[in-house]
Amino acid sequence: MKAAVIGAGRIGRVHIENISMAVREIEIKTVADPFINEDGEAFVRSFGIENVTKDVDSVFADPEIEAVLICSSTDTHADLIMKAAAAGKHIFCEKPVDHSVARVKMALEAVRKAGVKLQIGFVRRFDHNHRGVYDAVRSGKIGTPHILRISSRDPEPPTIEYVRRSGGIFYDMMIHDFDMIRFLAGSEVTEVYAKGAVLVDPAIGAEGDVDTAIVTLTFENGAIGVIDNSRQAVYGYDQRLEVFGSEGSVQDENDIPNTVVLSRREGTSYGTAYQVMWDRYTRAFIDEMHAFADSVINDKVPPVTDLDGLYPVLIAAAANLSLAEGRPVKISEVDE
Amino acid sequence: MKAAVIGAGRIGRVHIENISMAVREIEIKTVADPFINEDGEAFVRSFGIENVTKDVDSVFADPEIEAVLICSSTDTHADLIMKAAAAGKHIFCEKPVDHSVARVKMALEAVRKAGVKLQIGFVRRFDHNHRGVYDAVRSGKIGTPHILRISSRDPEPPTIEYVRRSGGIFYDMMIHDFDMIRFLAGSEVTEVYAKGAVLVDPAIGAEGDVDTAIVTLTFENGAIGVIDNSRQAVYGYDQRLEVFGSEGSVQDENDIPNTVVLSRREGTSYGTAYQVMWDRYTRAFIDEMHAFADSVINDKVPPVTDLDGLYPVLIAAAANLSLAEGRPVKISEVDE
Amino acid sequence: MKAAVIGAGRIGRVHIENISMAVREIEIKTVADPFINEDGEAFVRSFGIENVTKDVDSVFADPEIEAVLICSSTDTHADLIMKAAAAGKHIFCEKPVDHSVARVKMALEAVRKAGVKLQIGFVRRFDHNHRGVYDAVRSGKIGTPHILRISSRDPEPPTIEYVRRSGGIFYDMMIHDFDMIRFLAGSEVTEVYAKGAVLVDPAIGAEGDVDTAIVTLTFENGAIGVIDNSRQAVYGYDQRLEVFGSEGSVQDENDIPNTVVLSRREGTSYGTAYQVMWDRYTRAFIDEMHAFADSVINDKVPPVTDLDGLYPVLIAAAANLSLAEGRPVKISEVDE
Amino acid sequence: MKAAVIGAGRIGRVHIENISMAVREIEIKTVADPFINEDGEAFVRSFGIENVTKDVDSVFADPEIEAVLICSSTDTHADLIMKAAAAGKHIFCEKPVDHSVARVKMALEAVRKAGVKLQIGFVRRFDHNHRGVYDAVRSGKIGTPHILRISSRDPEPPTIEYVRRSGGIFYDMMIHDFDMIRFLAGSEVTEVYAKGAVLVDPAIGAEGDVDTAIVTLTFENGAIGVIDNSRQAVYGYDQRLEVFGSEGSVQDENDIPNTVVLSRREGTSYGTAYQVMWDRYTRAFIDEMHAFADSVINDKVPPVTDLDGLYPVLIAAAANLSLAEGRPVKISEVDE
Repeated sequence: MKAAVIGAGRIGRVHIENISMAVREIEIKTVADPFINEDGEAFVRSFGIENVTKDVDSVFADPEIEAVLICSSTDTHADLIMKAAAAGKHIFCEKPVDHSVARVKMALEAVRKAGVKLQIGFVRRFDHNHRGVYDAVRSGKIGTPHILRISSRDPEPPTIEYVRRSGGIFYDMMIHDFDMIRFLAGSEVTEVYAKGAVLVDPAIGAEGDVDTAIVTLTFENGAIGVIDNSRQAVYGYDQRLEVFGSEGSVQDENDIPNTVVLSRREGTSYGTAYQVMWDRYTRAFIDEMHAFADSVINDKVPPVTDLDGLYPVLIAAAANLSLAEGRPVKISEVDE
Repeated sequence: MKAAVIGAGRIGRVHIENISMAVREIEIKTVADPFINEDGEAFVRSFGIENVTKDVDSVFADPEIEAVLICSSTDTHADLIMKAAAAGKHIFCEKPVDHSVARVKMALEAVRKAGVKLQIGFVRRFDHNHRGVYDAVRSGKIGTPHILRISSRDPEPPTIEYVRRSGGIFYDMMIHDFDMIRFLAGSEVTEVYAKGAVLVDPAIGAEGDVDTAIVTLTFENGAIGVIDNSRQAVYGYDQRLEVFGSEGSVQDENDIPNTVVLSRREGTSYGTAYQVMWDRYTRAFIDEMHAFADSVINDKVPPVTDLDGLYPVLIAAAANLSLAEGRPVKISEVDE
Repeated sequence: MKAAVIGAGRIGRVHIENISMAVREIEIKTVADPFINEDGEAFVRSFGIENVTKDVDSVFADPEIEAVLICSSTDTHADLIMKAAAAGKHIFCEKPVDHSVARVKMALEAVRKAGVKLQIGFVRRFDHNHRGVYDAVRSGKIGTPHILRISSRDPEPPTIEYVRRSGGIFYDMMIHDFDMIRFLAGSEVTEVYAKGAVLVDPAIGAEGDVDTAIVTLTFENGAIGVIDNSRQAVYGYDQRLEVFGSEGSVQDENDIPNTVVLSRREGTSYGTAYQVMWDRYTRAFIDEMHAFADSVINDKVPPVTDLDGLYPVLIAAAANLSLAEGRPVKISEVDE
Repeated sequence: MKAAVIGAGRIGRVHIENISMAVREIEIKTVADPFINEDGEAFVRSFGIENVTKDVDSVFADPEIEAVLICSSTDTHADLIMKAAAAGKHIFCEKPVDHSVARVKMALEAVRKAGVKLQIGFVRRFDHNHRGVYDAVRSGKIGTPHILRISSRDPEPPTIEYVRRSGGIFYDMMIHDFDMIRFLAGSEVTEVYAKGAVLVDPAIGAEGDVDTAIVTLTFENGAIGVIDNSRQAVYGYDQRLEVFGSEGSVQDENDIPNTVVLSRREGTSYGTAYQVMWDRYTRAFIDEMHAFADSVINDKVPPVTDLDGLYPVLIAAAANLSLAEGRPVKISEVDE
């Protein structure tokens, strides 16, 4: 399957490298990025990709290209999805689709009309640990889910410039967890209560954002859940899930690079957690691409569907409103 | 130090046995219980305790008795505290002091005026695991606390009769966690948001109670916290804490009876958690009594003070109001 | 059951305290120790024991005393067993019975003739972790044992005076493991190969002893096993077992005082292991006494029998010979 | 760097796939295998490799080829090493070089004379867990090594045909551990005592081999070590190391595919270990090739040197003699 990557920034390069090295079923024909520089071009060419262009529209015009990977900035996602759909290309789009519920819906509508596949880049669904929790839940091993818990903490806060353009912690960071918790619950969120605090960096607060948050969620099926996020866990990536149900509980422990245990006078210690997202989710990024290729090549429903592009955005919108007004917010209040 | 135990029910007997066997610094002179039966009396006498009486007031009249342990039902606590204080006895009282904030305050006022010691039976503060988390927090190892999490789940729901008289999940069960989270935070709660569900047993719902709950808490010092409770964890007692802060995170894993690891075709398994509270907290119940004796004998402030009898009740009251009205509730709203 | 303790040294005091506090079914009537000093006497009396004597023989003459606990030095064990047997007293004797196989056999013969109970103080059989491994093996969960492994390391070497009188690492330290590995295997050792080294303290080597050792054992039932010992694990007591069999493997992890996990920049750490044997085996020492009382009171075979007093001594003798001659030694070679 | 792979059996294909997908610095120009069939050829061609030949000598004649990977059967290794050395090719050779100490020495002599690089395929040195243990030892974190322990167990025994041609458990299976324990000790083995048993499959015994073994080793630097092997761990690959030293101990826990923890009535369970070697050592096989490429391209000493091809063979020879004669054997006895 021939594909084009749109956007050769950080995440675009990860996909380019992974596909070139480890995803044989996808061939990247073109990389399009209006802002690509010499370094970026050299990077792309080092994988034997010939077409590097600043003209994004050329991708949609190329009949050989079956699928596009949208890895550009969030504000361009909806437009590019609509253009790709119009051109009949299958689409992989990084999260989130957009911060506007209306624009997300418009983009999804275009996809549906065009009958192309759309997979959203919620890469954590492909993490081997989280997947193990999901499989245990789906197989009924813990019975009916009652309580869902996610702790998700980044090693260090992004730059203030990034924070400014991020849309806030709920759209930028917790959106992964909003997707994951729905995925685990097998049910949609109906109500959200968000509590936030500025405890890591006052500059984040100055931008009107929070760096620490606890969000309580109610699900259609009666389960309740809670997510906590922090922009700074000094010990590295810390991402853990738990689903507690009528027949037991399943959780994953944080992922660390090896199983080494060191016993010394001061106690027994395990290794340091991952410090870099690409290391933490190496396999997940590759598996995500295998899944996308599989859905296109074998005409399957993608494992992260169009509605998975919408619901997390609705939850994030509700969380923002809840934080602003200091009250629980129903999803229906933000669903335009 | 000579003491009397008031109430020879389940918890009273635990204290009688522990003190007789393992707490040499306390001598139980009298056990007083208006409802004691033959079995109860035989149990008490088997520990060489001679005075067994149905006359509770005789305890207060006995000048030899320095301290009383109030182990009767919750509705009698406040009155007994006031009587004991009036008689100049030091007091150990099981949790909670009362469901009425006003009555708690009245009892505490009486204690303060009498100048006697009062220790509340928040036994989990003495658990070796939770204590280890507390010590790590207090010693500054994780910096300033940002997020506090408690999961606390019982092996099976109490009888409906018990539920009916329990005052609800917040006064009966989560009150332990309200105390613990304040203890860990080193700061008082200012606001509470409670979400509850009836997922274990509809009969609990029929009593107007919930069996599953997530409560979000805001602390004076800016930290935020979350507690989840379930009346039924089929795998046994599950009680875990985490305090996440500016310099790291400290948590305890659930306690299991031994370190045995069994590897078979179907995977690797650890032992089953405790099924009975007395097994789970054996050492904590003993250490709690050592601490009470130490505070009386050596004239120290008890490790669980009078205010620790008040604040958890305030939080429980706020949680009840939050659940009833579906909104966050400030502690000041319930502090009469 | 009325008992006397002979020897009020370190181990004797542990039993006196445990029985007084936690083993209600045994009443210590007398403590006899020819070398007892004022401190020792005060210690004994603090538990309400009236009879403290330097005259050991008075114990055997007292018809009220049903059982004796022999806690004196190893060289006195065999004689005291024979005297106690002659007097018709049941016997608990600290390990090892003697360093001479012939004398052990003589003592056991006396016990058998007298028809009294004899329990040897292999306390680790009562450890909750090791017991869990044993139970898994006996219940058939790992099938037929193939490989048995024990690692057993002390926090620090004893004094050189102690080493000098200890009989060497095999009689003094590894004897516990010789008992345990037989217990786990459910089969007797037929051959021993011992490899030793002086790596901790040259002074130990100067006494003709080793401080580090690996011993390979062959069992009658075909299984093979290995034990490693070190006199100094700087991180504390480290005692772990593994039994690997046809259907799986069961092991215990080292015991640590709590389940606290601390995550900081430098990694994730668990607590420090126990530094003091009495802390490590608190419950085991108590359970050992319950078991002895149970065997006497209810006329049961003790859980550590007379032959358990013999076989580990045979293995230790074979290990010493193996180390001296640098070759595998059959048990039959040392069985006089 | 252009390379040829000699032998397209199981291990050859692993290297072909890994290099093609993940080791960009090596280009496989030729795959040579006298016995290659259509399937094998199709497999090779699927990675875009054009030259597939049955003529192994053509590899040595091709001036473009800088390095050869010898993945054929053990009996061909020594000859192929000598031919490759004569042709000036750098060499990666699967373990063991040969079962004859004399032939190993001849091959190594040829390599030394030719001045080419030789890396032996002891892939476990590249395992992320074992590497972590090694790094901790080398960095001095545990002080001076005193006791080294390796447990290494395969999920299921090989076929009897394989056993027959394998050279026995020491040359075929424990040779990995002989290499690893030297690597960890940083010192050479001087004496070996091997104990073996036939507990898994009598047919293995009928071939004169054992399926279960414990080997005790003495090192030049005074440390002592022990390795246990079983041909069948029903719960999957079980490979664990421990190095215990003067300042602590470092070990690795067995590797499992994820961190999922499931708590149910019957206890708490972790995932099943790996069942397939390629899954267990995926990254190690790739890292091994990166290291080989690095040593050739950047003219470095390979991380597994020629002597690493010799010493494990000497230890295996000593273990065989020890098992046959039931006595400890010095390495000098088998070093011709």
